[in-house]
Amino acid sequence: MPQDIDAAMEALNASVEVDCELWRVDIRGSMAHARGLAQAGIISAAEAAQLVGGLEQIGAMIEAGELEWDAKLEDVHMNIEARLTELVGPVGGKLHTGRSRNDQVATDLRLWARGQCEAALRALSALARVIVSRADDEIDTLMPAYTHLQRGQPSRLSHHLLAWEQMLWRDRGRLHDGMLRLNECPLGAGAVAGTGFPIDREVVARDLGFERAMKNSLDATASRDFLLELASSLAILGVHLSRIAEEIVIWSTQEFGFLTLSDQFATSSSMMPQKKNPDVAELIRGKSARLIGSATALLALEKGLPLGYDRDLQEDKRPIFDAFSDALACLRALAGALATCSFERERLQAALARGHLCATDLADYLVGQGVPFREAHGVVGGLVRAAEAAGVDLGELSTEVLREAHASLGSEEARAVFDPEAAVERRAVVGGPARARVMESIFDARQRWQTGPATGA
Amino acid sequence: MPQDIDAAMEALNASVEVDCELWRVDIRGSMAHARGLAQAGIISAAEAAQLVGGLEQIGAMIEAGELEWDAKLEDVHMNIEARLTELVGPVGGKLHTGRSRNDQVATDLRLWARGQCEAALRALSALARVIVSRADDEIDTLMPAYTHLQRGQPSRLSHHLLAWEQMLWRDRGRLHDGMLRLNECPLGAGAVAGTGFPIDREVVARDLGFERAMKNSLDATASRDFLLELASSLAILGVHLSRIAEEIVIWSTQEFGFLTLSDQFATSSSMMPQKKNPDVAELIRGKSARLIGSATALLALEKGLPLGYDRDLQEDKRPIFDAFSDALACLRALAGALATCSFERERLQAALARGHLCATDLADYLVGQGVPFREAHGVVGGLVRAAEAAGVDLGELSTEVLREAHASLGSEEARAVFDPEAAVERRAVVGGPARARVMESIFDARQRWQTGPATGA
Amino acid sequence: MPQDIDAAMEALNASVEVDCELWRVDIRGSMAHARGLAQAGIISAAEAAQLVGGLEQIGAMIEAGELEWDAKLEDVHMNIEARLTELVGPVGGKLHTGRSRNDQVATDLRLWARGQCEAALRALSALARVIVSRADDEIDTLMPAYTHLQRGQPSRLSHHLLAWEQMLWRDRGRLHDGMLRLNECPLGAGAVAGTGFPIDREVVARDLGFERAMKNSLDATASRDFLLELASSLAILGVHLSRIAEEIVIWSTQEFGFLTLSDQFATSSSMMPQKKNPDVAELIRGKSARLIGSATALLALEKGLPLGYDRDLQEDKRPIFDAFSDALACLRALAGALATCSFERERLQAALARGHLCATDLADYLVGQGVPFREAHGVVGGLVRAAEAAGVDLGELSTEVLREAHASLGSEEARAVFDPEAAVERRAVVGGPARARVMESIFDARQRWQTGPATGA
Amino acid sequence: MPQDIDAAMEALNASVEVDCELWRVDIRGSMAHARGLAQAGIISAAEAAQLVGGLEQIGAMIEAGELEWDAKLEDVHMNIEARLTELVGPVGGKLHTGRSRNDQVATDLRLWARGQCEAALRALSALARVIVSRADDEIDTLMPAYTHLQRGQPSRLSHHLLAWEQMLWRDRGRLHDGMLRLNECPLGAGAVAGTGFPIDREVVARDLGFERAMKNSLDATASRDFLLELASSLAILGVHLSRIAEEIVIWSTQEFGFLTLSDQFATSSSMMPQKKNPDVAELIRGKSARLIGSATALLALEKGLPLGYDRDLQEDKRPIFDAFSDALACLRALAGALATCSFERERLQAALARGHLCATDLADYLVGQGVPFREAHGVVGGLVRAAEAAGVDLGELSTEVLREAHASLGSEEARAVFDPEAAVERRAVVGGPARARVMESIFDARQRWQTGPATGA
Repeated sequence: MPQDIDAAMEALNASVEVDCELWRVDIRGSMAHARGLAQAGIISAAEAAQLVGGLEQIGAMIEAGELEWDAKLEDVHMNIEARLTELVGPVGGKLHTGRSRNDQVATDLRLWARGQCEAALRALSALARVIVSRADDEIDTLMPAYTHLQRGQPSRLSHHLLAWEQMLWRDRGRLHDGMLRLNECPLGAGAVAGTGFPIDREVVARDLGFERAMKNSLDATASRDFLLELASSLAILGVHLSRIAEEIVIWSTQEFGFLTLSDQFATSSSMMPQKKNPDVAELIRGKSARLIGSATALLALEKGLPLGYDRDLQEDKRPIFDAFSDALACLRALAGALATCSFERERLQAALARGHLCATDLADYLVGQGVPFREAHGVVGGLVRAAEAAGVDLGELSTEVLREAHASLGSEEARAVFDPEAAVERRAVVGGPARARVMESIFDARQRWQTGPATGA
Repeated sequence: MPQDIDAAMEALNASVEVDCELWRVDIRGSMAHARGLAQAGIISAAEAAQLVGGLEQIGAMIEAGELEWDAKLEDVHMNIEARLTELVGPVGGKLHTGRSRNDQVATDLRLWARGQCEAALRALSALARVIVSRADDEIDTLMPAYTHLQRGQPSRLSHHLLAWEQMLWRDRGRLHDGMLRLNECPLGAGAVAGTGFPIDREVVARDLGFERAMKNSLDATASRDFLLELASSLAILGVHLSRIAEEIVIWSTQEFGFLTLSDQFATSSSMMPQKKNPDVAELIRGKSARLIGSATALLALEKGLPLGYDRDLQEDKRPIFDAFSDALACLRALAGALATCSFERERLQAALARGHLCATDLADYLVGQGVPFREAHGVVGGLVRAAEAAGVDLGELSTEVLREAHASLGSEEARAVFDPEAAVERRAVVGGPARARVMESIFDARQRWQTGPATGA
Repeated sequence: MPQDIDAAMEALNASVEVDCELWRVDIRGSMAHARGLAQAGIISAAEAAQLVGGLEQIGAMIEAGELEWDAKLEDVHMNIEARLTELVGPVGGKLHTGRSRNDQVATDLRLWARGQCEAALRALSALARVIVSRADDEIDTLMPAYTHLQRGQPSRLSHHLLAWEQMLWRDRGRLHDGMLRLNECPLGAGAVAGTGFPIDREVVARDLGFERAMKNSLDATASRDFLLELASSLAILGVHLSRIAEEIVIWSTQEFGFLTLSDQFATSSSMMPQKKNPDVAELIRGKSARLIGSATALLALEKGLPLGYDRDLQEDKRPIFDAFSDALACLRALAGALATCSFERERLQAALARGHLCATDLADYLVGQGVPFREAHGVVGGLVRAAEAAGVDLGELSTEVLREAHASLGSEEARAVFDPEAAVERRAVVGGPARARVMESIFDARQRWQTGPATGA
Repeated sequence: MPQDIDAAMEALNASVEVDCELWRVDIRGSMAHARGLAQAGIISAAEAAQLVGGLEQIGAMIEAGELEWDAKLEDVHMNIEARLTELVGPVGGKLHTGRSRNDQVATDLRLWARGQCEAALRALSALARVIVSRADDEIDTLMPAYTHLQRGQPSRLSHHLLAWEQMLWRDRGRLHDGMLRLNECPLGAGAVAGTGFPIDREVVARDLGFERAMKNSLDATASRDFLLELASSLAILGVHLSRIAEEIVIWSTQEFGFLTLSDQFATSSSMMPQKKNPDVAELIRGKSARLIGSATALLALEKGLPLGYDRDLQEDKRPIFDAFSDALACLRALAGALATCSFERERLQAALARGHLCATDLADYLVGQGVPFREAHGVVGGLVRAAEAAGVDLGELSTEVLREAHASLGSEEARAVFDPEAAVERRAVVGGPARARVMESIFDARQRWQTGPATGA
């Protein structure tokens, strides 16, 4: 059994296959630590320079694909440190002075997560700008607004696209808040109770671009709520992307026909030669499920763990690495798909003709004539049933039928209610689909995604 | 089959049993809408006054338990509107002018969530203040710092408690950020595409204490990411509470004996007359799982939903209602349990005697003598094995044995390393357990929980 | 603070509001325990009769709504026992001999879960029979088979409905397997280490309809994997129902128009008088998310709990109660909705005309003429592009164009490939949509849901 | 932008990096399909032999690491087919006749999952046998039984270990049931509506070791509930392993000291030279969280997907691959850790001395004297309080104090109640910790894990 046992433990224990993702930030953190040791007089300036130089060399080697990760050395940290000692000799053994793998990995993760947030915010912004730009292109394209996937009222495609923009704006705020909140430095927290060496933690923190040193060494090494927060924010972002994706799938059907993906973003079938499938949208929708799984895994992982560091935390890496990688892939592919798709304006416009879309406007017209809304709603409901029975749309009912339902409906003015363009323009409240309002929203969105703050307003 | 069918559909459809929780905010929202209709000249000031008066009356009735919710009227909104029309007559039918259940319920949920956040922030602050106060009481209580639930280094109970405080501080930030982000008003968004009536949405928004009107009517009625964000933040808070709870359970064992719950917070067994169980901590740990489940349910709920409003969203209420109610119960009970428990100072102190807790300090001492850290770590590792073999703690090894391992370890100075109190004081970096550092942290925490901003610094 | 503390602990601790759901099985379990005590000579037959009689009386009272649950008595078990002692006097105090709340509640939960499984299996069977019956009605209704929500090949509505049936059949197997697996009796396991009284556990087990006594008292009181299994099976069932629901939503759109819900199962809008929304399907889809949340909550709840019984387990009740109640509501409502909806045969049939649905058949025809499949796929792909360019469907291309693509396509025989009905009939393999195969499947399904075993074949 | 777009879509679309895991079963499935085509006369026997030979060659190449997966060819299926055509020429293009990637991948997944179940069942059985064997070794080791992590009653280590065995036994049943349920063959289902070629699906199914051909081609290609079921069963198994892991962590503390991991399964600290950490248990506990995440991801993935095949399903692979791989690693490592750990018999035995563990027995003794249990429970509760006040254990109270509490407690016989060994032996009911009962359980467990059926009894 012995060999099996060793194999079983090694399979469970070794993490370098996954955590090699951290190599850049690990090197960066070690450089700052070396400088901190020198600044505190714990090692000499020359020693620090040797260490930093060696680390730079290792970075270049990894970049060039010249360092083979060795599972026997367990993780990315020991792989780099072992290589360093080979390169610079015994002084390599001084790098870990006043440091533990516990504060080291916590620092690496925060540096890594900060960089990923920046990448995600850039990709999010690129996607939002595509959406706003398509909204601008389609400013004159009318379409039904749906609820329950049923046609509801006349509206405007740009208005629909800008709903997506608003959703993404809040995602931006969440990621940005999380990025600010995590920007504290664990280095110097040691294994759990701080280091006895007089390192100036604030200096090291600033060296790495952190806002401050973390205020409690036990918390610094044992807490990962920043990952939970980011994974949750990414899961919410994924939910938003999945909603957009669902609409792309539905709009791409032969039945709706509102949208045609470019060939680059549609795929064919191995059996059915005529198929052109919205795989890009389905994959995004699918990946949103995995983002939910990652958030759940991380929450379950930390539940009930006593302080300080427990090895369970090693298992936080795969879920958060996957989460950022999946989110980035989705953001980029969706931006490409939306930038290159065609909106089928005639099909969108044609959809206004059926569904009695001006029923609300007709009821509102009655309210304008002094009828209480609930009563007006009832009168129009009756007319809709009459239209259905006659196999026509509400706007095709004769003036007699309308007048019979309510005297005021016999007028020219009432008839004008059925014009969908006018109906859209009547919805000129803040946030409504009237052309001028939507133009304002496009202007506002352009401003925000250029320069705006990530939180709140 | 007909009756069964009706029963099946009603069982699925009726929600008043759950959403009656929203009655206060529903009334508040309706009052603001009525005033908004009057301000825009859509109804008269007298009509608005009638409506507001009627709504006030209904609020008083519900408060007094005099209104029976009727499942036939489906939800809280129709129950209140129906009662209003009974009270004020036909003018009741005007209340819903320019409004849909879609913007109404979205407004209710935001008002409700805002209030719940405030309550949670208050309870969180109360708990944090209890913790800080206990940290102050226990400033002179030493204990081991643990990693992997193994004794690691000498530390201080206050330092451990302040790690809890730091975790809660970030929870405060998350809830506060989410509360700011949701504080926008959906009213006026109608069913999906805004209202045709010239309501001034910004005025109505301010009337309800919102920062602004929501910028897109489709987004306003179809989005619930604010619930997803709050549920996630509560799940993370729950994870933190579960970690504290786990430590209470472990510290309360006969084996650890670090903590004794007051009788109010311990419970007995129906079979074993001697038992005093840490049920309060176990229930909190258990509820954290349900908070995870609520966040997951809400994420899965919204995944892949096309815009605008879909009825699936009705199912968001129970999870978010449960989440806030569970979180509040946990925060309050934990505050009580921690305020009234005893920390067993002698047991905590006694735990320092075994576990070779000064091994790191001994290695650090060698580093001070010029030995590279990795080598020093090896020397001390050897001494620990020697101590284990001899059945003593590291500090009980003879001077000879120490000197043999490394010449410098024969000195008086080296021997002094084994004093746990001195070891704790040596960890005087920012965030370390040295007494002065912890006193600073207590002061800092007091300031923050009194007045500090919820985000960031 | 004292009162607050008590309130906080009581809010966390009391469970009778939730666990009163268990009253019937708690009484049943107590009766069996009383008989077991008598059978073992621990109490007299007369005492057992008194206890059983008292419990019967209490059951009748609860049924009649005459027992008020008292939160001060904490849970359903103590409420019933307290009332029993009031009714029968001091002998009431003997009921708990050789029993703990730990084995009592584990027994109650298993009895309850067994009953719920039976109810769910009945409702599942009723739904499946509705589906099979609709499949029989629609045996001659053709429609496209979709992949990626794109039209793929000609098929048959019955064939689609029977895919639902197959999914439900496996759900039946999972629930049934879980029901068999849980059917073991914890009574006699005591708090954790069994009872010292010589109760015959097998006799008590059989009295309650269990297969056997549980084999380890620690496992019997500390394990809840039966709930995890059932919650998972219900979540999978919910996923299946959500897929059916999604199709109902999509088929009910104006654009697809394949299905019309009966008025009983469609709902209207408070603002838009013309709306008829597929709320029943959306609510089912929404509830499937809550079923996922319940399974996740239960998994997270038990993760990392040491044995034996921990109070965390109290929190398993709400998720499993909700899960069964939600699943039952969905099964019943969906059965009603499907029993009463109309399938719009003309719209279904009309959908065959566009989408080049016979492209695969054309490629298969070429294969029959000796062309390797991959090459045939390419030839037909070219023809589809030609048809698209000409704005026609594949079947509308001229014989010349076909012949040019491949000589054999100029024949009459080749032209016959475009008949959708023939195409469906060609798919006569097991599991295909040819009429005779579907008739066989209907017959097979009828047999199975009548009498068949729940597992496997 | 074009290149970026292509890169973005490729990043999302290509799956070979993940699904290359399926190569063995893909080749096996293709061989059976080739034989099926020949058997039906669609290709010649010689062509089938060429295809099978080519596939064998490719298998050998992959085994030898000589095939480079090409992301441009998208997935494992196209990589193999492309290579095949290179090897065997145009006949390679005939392999996909009557097949689609949809039924191909569904077949691969089922074959793969069946193999993984078998591997998991073997690893589970190996772990269970280790546990039973340790239970046998420790048959005479007494220890307290805990509830709420508080000492409850005297018990036996073997009895505790056998609770683990029972949990694993049910896990075995779940995996086995799932394996049986999935054992149906999708091949011949085509893309969605079956194939028009007269393949004998039952023959192909048997060739691949399946029980039967799947009964509905739409279900066969669109359903993945077998993965949801397996992921759920693995998550439940993971929960069980996490509970065992939690106990290993707690038992390994200095405070409990019940268990010492072998050096192979304990790990050290990079900073603290004395540390020996139970990483193996923490990693297992951590991986259980990821198993929960995988199950959640898969459930969320399939929720609300319309039939037939949607590309979202590509995202099911990573979660299920990870789930099996994590579960296997945990099972194997835990078996090794438990096979090589030491149970510290003296510490276990010593723990019986404190905690008033015979309180229940004393109450039971009073019941034997005719005192109703609830009253007896009260009397003993009072004695425990007296002991606590005197700083002694219940068994150390003087005979006078006992007699005062209740006359019968003054006897020799009553005093004998305090012997822990006798107390354990008194619990001789089925499933109790009495030596003979535990011996029976060991015998029974040995039988079952050797030969027993996986479901039920």
